[in-house]
Amino acid sequence: MEELVVLRLGHRPQRDKRITTHLALCARALGASGMVYSGERDSKLEEGVRDVVERWGGSFWVRYTASWRRELREWGGRVVHLTMYGVPVQEAVGEIRAWGGPLLVVVGGPKVPGEVYHLAHWNASVTNQPHSEVSALALFLYLLQGEEALTHTFPGAKIEIEPTPRGKKVKTGKL
Amino acid sequence: MEELVVLRLGHRPQRDKRITTHLALCARALGASGMVYSGERDSKLEEGVRDVVERWGGSFWVRYTASWRRELREWGGRVVHLTMYGVPVQEAVGEIRAWGGPLLVVVGGPKVPGEVYHLAHWNASVTNQPHSEVSALALFLYLLQGEEALTHTFPGAKIEIEPTPRGKKVKTGKL
Repeated sequence: MEELVVLRLGHRPQRDKRITTHLALCARALGASGMVYSGERDSKLEEGVRDVVERWGGSFWVRYTASWRRELREWGGRVVHLTMYGVPVQEAVGEIRAWGGPLLVVVGGPKVPGEVYHLAHWNASVTNQPHSEVSALALFLYLLQGEEALTHTFPGAKIEIEPTPRGKKVKTGKL
Repeated sequence: MEELVVLRLGHRPQRDKRITTHLALCARALGASGMVYSGERDSKLEEGVRDVVERWGGSFWVRYTASWRRELREWGGRVVHLTMYGVPVQEAVGEIRAWGGPLLVVVGGPKVPGEVYHLAHWNASVTNQPHSEVSALALFLYLLQGEEALTHTFPGAKIEIEPTPRGKKVKTGKL
């Protein structure tokens, strides 16, 4: 994927801190380049994500935008909006993958403006049931990339885990 | 899957309310039968999940346990613990699927006791990077079931979505 970025709409620092952090970390772990978020600016959120990148490696970035509309309009590629109202992601993903250029993945907040549905090239649903932005994003990134989603590497890591069937092993660094 | 249940460890009502709710809804949407949680009892969490089931259908249940140890010991099947220290889930899942009997999926809280790693039949990692319990659970349930994970039905629903490429359509009921 040439460029894969997540746009998180309508962040509210009090209420959404952990959900938005989980979205960013999920995006990073599954190979996105970065995450833009709208709503309210949240320096603690940004610090938390940057701290993970500093320790766990890679070049994932996070930044605030005062205008999600501008982000959508000025994005030099295509846009997929994850929503429980959209067409089944498993049906849309072949076409999305075939596009192959820069992809912006929009993940909603509490009330997504109708305009988003129209600015997106695809509105895709990860089931038509209520669950979580985090699970929707994770499943979309997996379906998009296949097993490659689970094997990204993170250059410059200070901490690396050694997979083990029992207990905890750290290959590099300290948790 | 004969019986598929999630055990969420160490719930803290203040801090984890939304994460644990998202875990339960993710488990439900992707076909689990129910979720047990330990830590602190949280009637609001339970009410929120039951309210979703009441409106969106199916028979997903949620209950508190005062002893995760007892749940693990008395579980009449096998146990998979999702942890970033475990063996890659994509390598373990074939064996887990082949088991085919009742499966308890343990999802950690902040500090998982070492005993859990030993009581589990599998410790499986969804990448060895930090991300989210919610994305880990979603990806595990998808890898376990394949595309079937995304097409579960929920009898008795008062609300049903009609998938659509633009905007929102509700087939039954009111949001």
